[in-house]
Amino acid sequence: MSNTFGNIFRLTTFGESHGEVVGGVIDGFPVGVPIDLNKVQSEVDSRRTGQNGFSSQRNEKDRVEVLSGLFKGCTTGAPIAFMIKNDDARPNDYEAIRNIYRPSHADFCYYTKYKGFADYRGGGRASARETVSWVVAGAFAQQYLETKSIEIDACVSQIGQVRAELTDDWSDMSDSEVRCPDLQASREMMAAIGQAKTDGDSLGGIVNGRIKGLPVGLGEPVFDKFHAMLAKAMFSINAVKGFEIGDGFDMVSHRGSEVNDGFEMKGDVAVPSTNHSGGVMGGITDGADVTFRVAFKPTPSVSKEQTVLNHDGKIESVSCKGRHDVCFVPRAVTVVKAMAALVTLDALLMKQ
Amino acid sequence: MSNTFGNIFRLTTFGESHGEVVGGVIDGFPVGVPIDLNKVQSEVDSRRTGQNGFSSQRNEKDRVEVLSGLFKGCTTGAPIAFMIKNDDARPNDYEAIRNIYRPSHADFCYYTKYKGFADYRGGGRASARETVSWVVAGAFAQQYLETKSIEIDACVSQIGQVRAELTDDWSDMSDSEVRCPDLQASREMMAAIGQAKTDGDSLGGIVNGRIKGLPVGLGEPVFDKFHAMLAKAMFSINAVKGFEIGDGFDMVSHRGSEVNDGFEMKGDVAVPSTNHSGGVMGGITDGADVTFRVAFKPTPSVSKEQTVLNHDGKIESVSCKGRHDVCFVPRAVTVVKAMAALVTLDALLMKQ
Amino acid sequence: MSNTFGNIFRLTTFGESHGEVVGGVIDGFPVGVPIDLNKVQSEVDSRRTGQNGFSSQRNEKDRVEVLSGLFKGCTTGAPIAFMIKNDDARPNDYEAIRNIYRPSHADFCYYTKYKGFADYRGGGRASARETVSWVVAGAFAQQYLETKSIEIDACVSQIGQVRAELTDDWSDMSDSEVRCPDLQASREMMAAIGQAKTDGDSLGGIVNGRIKGLPVGLGEPVFDKFHAMLAKAMFSINAVKGFEIGDGFDMVSHRGSEVNDGFEMKGDVAVPSTNHSGGVMGGITDGADVTFRVAFKPTPSVSKEQTVLNHDGKIESVSCKGRHDVCFVPRAVTVVKAMAALVTLDALLMKQ
Amino acid sequence: MSNTFGNIFRLTTFGESHGEVVGGVIDGFPVGVPIDLNKVQSEVDSRRTGQNGFSSQRNEKDRVEVLSGLFKGCTTGAPIAFMIKNDDARPNDYEAIRNIYRPSHADFCYYTKYKGFADYRGGGRASARETVSWVVAGAFAQQYLETKSIEIDACVSQIGQVRAELTDDWSDMSDSEVRCPDLQASREMMAAIGQAKTDGDSLGGIVNGRIKGLPVGLGEPVFDKFHAMLAKAMFSINAVKGFEIGDGFDMVSHRGSEVNDGFEMKGDVAVPSTNHSGGVMGGITDGADVTFRVAFKPTPSVSKEQTVLNHDGKIESVSCKGRHDVCFVPRAVTVVKAMAALVTLDALLMKQ
Repeated sequence: MSNTFGNIFRLTTFGESHGEVVGGVIDGFPVGVPIDLNKVQSEVDSRRTGQNGFSSQRNEKDRVEVLSGLFKGCTTGAPIAFMIKNDDARPNDYEAIRNIYRPSHADFCYYTKYKGFADYRGGGRASARETVSWVVAGAFAQQYLETKSIEIDACVSQIGQVRAELTDDWSDMSDSEVRCPDLQASREMMAAIGQAKTDGDSLGGIVNGRIKGLPVGLGEPVFDKFHAMLAKAMFSINAVKGFEIGDGFDMVSHRGSEVNDGFEMKGDVAVPSTNHSGGVMGGITDGADVTFRVAFKPTPSVSKEQTVLNHDGKIESVSCKGRHDVCFVPRAVTVVKAMAALVTLDALLMKQ
Repeated sequence: MSNTFGNIFRLTTFGESHGEVVGGVIDGFPVGVPIDLNKVQSEVDSRRTGQNGFSSQRNEKDRVEVLSGLFKGCTTGAPIAFMIKNDDARPNDYEAIRNIYRPSHADFCYYTKYKGFADYRGGGRASARETVSWVVAGAFAQQYLETKSIEIDACVSQIGQVRAELTDDWSDMSDSEVRCPDLQASREMMAAIGQAKTDGDSLGGIVNGRIKGLPVGLGEPVFDKFHAMLAKAMFSINAVKGFEIGDGFDMVSHRGSEVNDGFEMKGDVAVPSTNHSGGVMGGITDGADVTFRVAFKPTPSVSKEQTVLNHDGKIESVSCKGRHDVCFVPRAVTVVKAMAALVTLDALLMKQ
Repeated sequence: MSNTFGNIFRLTTFGESHGEVVGGVIDGFPVGVPIDLNKVQSEVDSRRTGQNGFSSQRNEKDRVEVLSGLFKGCTTGAPIAFMIKNDDARPNDYEAIRNIYRPSHADFCYYTKYKGFADYRGGGRASARETVSWVVAGAFAQQYLETKSIEIDACVSQIGQVRAELTDDWSDMSDSEVRCPDLQASREMMAAIGQAKTDGDSLGGIVNGRIKGLPVGLGEPVFDKFHAMLAKAMFSINAVKGFEIGDGFDMVSHRGSEVNDGFEMKGDVAVPSTNHSGGVMGGITDGADVTFRVAFKPTPSVSKEQTVLNHDGKIESVSCKGRHDVCFVPRAVTVVKAMAALVTLDALLMKQ
Repeated sequence: MSNTFGNIFRLTTFGESHGEVVGGVIDGFPVGVPIDLNKVQSEVDSRRTGQNGFSSQRNEKDRVEVLSGLFKGCTTGAPIAFMIKNDDARPNDYEAIRNIYRPSHADFCYYTKYKGFADYRGGGRASARETVSWVVAGAFAQQYLETKSIEIDACVSQIGQVRAELTDDWSDMSDSEVRCPDLQASREMMAAIGQAKTDGDSLGGIVNGRIKGLPVGLGEPVFDKFHAMLAKAMFSINAVKGFEIGDGFDMVSHRGSEVNDGFEMKGDVAVPSTNHSGGVMGGITDGADVTFRVAFKPTPSVSKEQTVLNHDGKIESVSCKGRHDVCFVPRAVTVVKAMAALVTLDALLMKQ
């Protein structure tokens, strides 16, 4: 299994959804950086389940314990290991689904790939529980990036069929339970989620990401293009089915002369004068904001009854009794930010 | 620079657009596989410029020379090095653009990143010329995959604003100059390209990819998910701005119960009964066809005049006199197939 | 920092000598292998300090806690994280040496490399405490190797100036406090250690290693030769200054015809008829026992007074008051076995 | 197969001993370094066969052709590909040995590992011919290292039973056909080689290496210790059976107080006052000269008759008719320098 992410700045993760702990080891973090562990905890809290009425009812405390790599509050260059206890795991909940292939879940692929030895409880390594470790590592990365005036942000731009109108100002997001800065759309999204809950169904959505303050020159010209690394990071997140950079799929319908980004002088520095490209030209950051969009499918676990195949080849009728989100997209905002931070720090260190 | 692609099956490439050669070294190829070099050449030919009236006028012979790794027609387990001479390079054509930042090109980023030492001729390493090496490696990979009954295909589904209606049967593609199996759409695409040429402009498009015959279990559950590796591969191709797997962005507007893929028995084997997921669940192939779509922006080089910034911070008016495609998307079909083959073979070997 | 060892089978370690824990994450371990954790603990115990009167007086309980990757007693293919608490750490002991460069220690290099941010207590990451994590991973590896009838062993063949006469039978080692199967030499080694202790000095030694039961074909012909990987593993162990495979340095004084290993039939299999090469020809295992020797310098920490330079450039007179072994070579036997197991399992998986 | 060496500065090689070419791709070389290709050629010439009466009679011109990565005489940051044609290959010479397992050669291991598909001519990838590519890459690396005042040297200190007395001054080496600065020993070595030739036999030897001018802080504390990387590099060279750093195996017989290296002030910089450690403490360079010794076994190919096993399990009597060195150790001096340069540049870039 591939449990390590990154080239110079690397995260190796471990732990199963319903085992004792999840955690990770960060390697390659710059030396001598003061770390505020409260900020790390606060990112983890912002990802946590139970934050609103529409999320899963798991109620973990999710306390981050740092095991190594800090000395007198600063990074030492040694690996930073951390773990989070799974306080609220209820592995027995999953005995019921032990012998079925849940629709659009990894159960079937896991069972076949690992010859039945995988930990079937709550998805094991495949569970979105894994992403809590990414959020911890991302929070470390963001603290370093902030010292370089690099700022990473993300928000919800669509849930189900409700599309937000976004401007550059995302500050209203803090007033939105679904993390959408368009507050009118936010209310409609809440209503759509409520209706889906009533119907025992689930919804997907789109998260927009933005990285401000990047220097020119991150990313490699051939195989580690900045946006290629970013795409790989985003497709690592559970339920992601699409990724686009800049104007993305929409550029297909335009001619070159309409979407080409030229340059202009800003003081004595050349900068892009428009940003259809999303901050990346030829795979390398151009100094403009990196902008991207990530499409999430609806949660595959729905409480309405579905017919499923069991390991004996028989059809059963099942409704998912686990604690699952009707729409996890608002929580995914935190994970998108974290993965963007991992890629950005790695690219920054690769450049140096 | 990152010039190596893959984990177990790896391609390392070299060469500049207007240097003497481009080429690569394939490492990790299975032992004892008979290789038909004519088929390799034929893939390279299918990518070649000059294949129709709308492509770049470079007319390289593009003969693949294999330098090592084959013995009596079979792979030996030793690295397979190959090169292709750049017969038709005209580096002097590029002296004119030496001091400008072409819009939406890598020039500006390169110049900044490599402090002026990069080879500016024709994009150097950033040029799409590089992809000829990927096609060679992909053609080797495809010959092995065929022995496992794995079949990789790709076609054009959109050019500019012309969208094709695709069925599962892509056989009519061979009658289409733009590699679109919907022949009615194909004719409209040709017309759109013709009009763009007249206007001195350029067009983008979408390439659909499909991998048939994959076993269940390719890809890793956490950081080397099959579709994450595929996404990274596709975003390595010049001008790609979007990627989606299965129903992709369209899944966002549907509820879970509408797009969940269940399982059914086919003989005594469990198989997915629908394929919204695009052949991948939880990052691991599920035995269904892997289906994906790749969005290409229009060629940034247009022959109509554009205002550009030069290295002295002055605005010039320039029209790209190089030999460039009005729409390179039909040629990109070959590159998409090649990159899909590299990922598939790598994932297959990672599983073993 | 490089904190990961191995290619397919990989160990990533963390923790400082006098921090809270040391530990590691094992990735790439085969699926479905039953693990006896008592055996793992028993390897750790055999490395532990305090095993005889001549070792360091640290008296840690060194209990291995496995955090992930096992389910119902078997490996699942998920990463295996583990940690060992540093119960007996006394970081304050080290305040005294905070401002000096101990002779032949990493202090000076660390201080310069990490700009003063490194954890100076007890050597931090550079401490031999780190090797306890290697022993845990090695114990996991050995349990898998045993299922393939591969057996790894090591013993002491020299301490200070006392050289043992070794035969192929190492069974008497269990009766030797210094792990030397030549019991006469063992007694002399004990005496030499006793004398060095009285003198406030320290001793080095040589550990011989042996791997039985390897299949033909482990190791790669060019850059991952089996014995090159083994050498790198051994030089990772603190205080190692020399490594030789087979007859090693002694082969230099012989002619080719004297030390060439031919082949003979054993039943219907070709096998080497002699073993000057140490089980490796051209970098690849040949089916004979892999035999090697590892030279350890004496512990640099000695209790007799030494003059040392402090950070202010002044000379001080210091005697190492820490708890250090007079001769750690007997304990290193366990570490040599562990590192040999990591390399062997990695090479075995690389072959597959 | 593992055909790539290095972490940040990486060499990937290709080609077989008796195929058309050997060559490599250098990736990660610093940008903007002027390269003198005559110096590269001159290193290759110094390794070449036929330099004295005792070496193999192959008489290749060994012209280095650089295929990419240089522009106007400087490195561009793009991969540097190169190749050397095998002008004097006589593959048919090897048909005779096609069906035997030559003693102490890789034939047997290769045949078993690659199921008979390997290129058997002249050792294929296992041949020392491969090292010519290392010498090219090393020559590039040395040109960069020289700009940092880092100087790498190597010489012969023993051939067969003749040991040289070495001082720090190796300048007389240029007067020695066997590259030994002790000219008295050099004459005896020549005589010993002459006698071995007469007897149809072969000799091994020891090469001493030295790296001057390294900054403090190269190498990593745990798994990429500087001398561990160096050891792995040296054991990659054909016929190497032993490696030691600093006083190496000799330290075993001394007490800690005798071989500890303290520090003293040199101007306002702390430097080691002695150098038993060989320039490395705790895996990290300490600013003293890195000194090491590499043991080579005698060439396994001898012209006197040997009995060998063939693929049918029968014993044949064979004398090696190929063109082989009686003693290749003087030529290995160039290869030792090259590999030391690859490791040094990689460690230097890892530090940055």
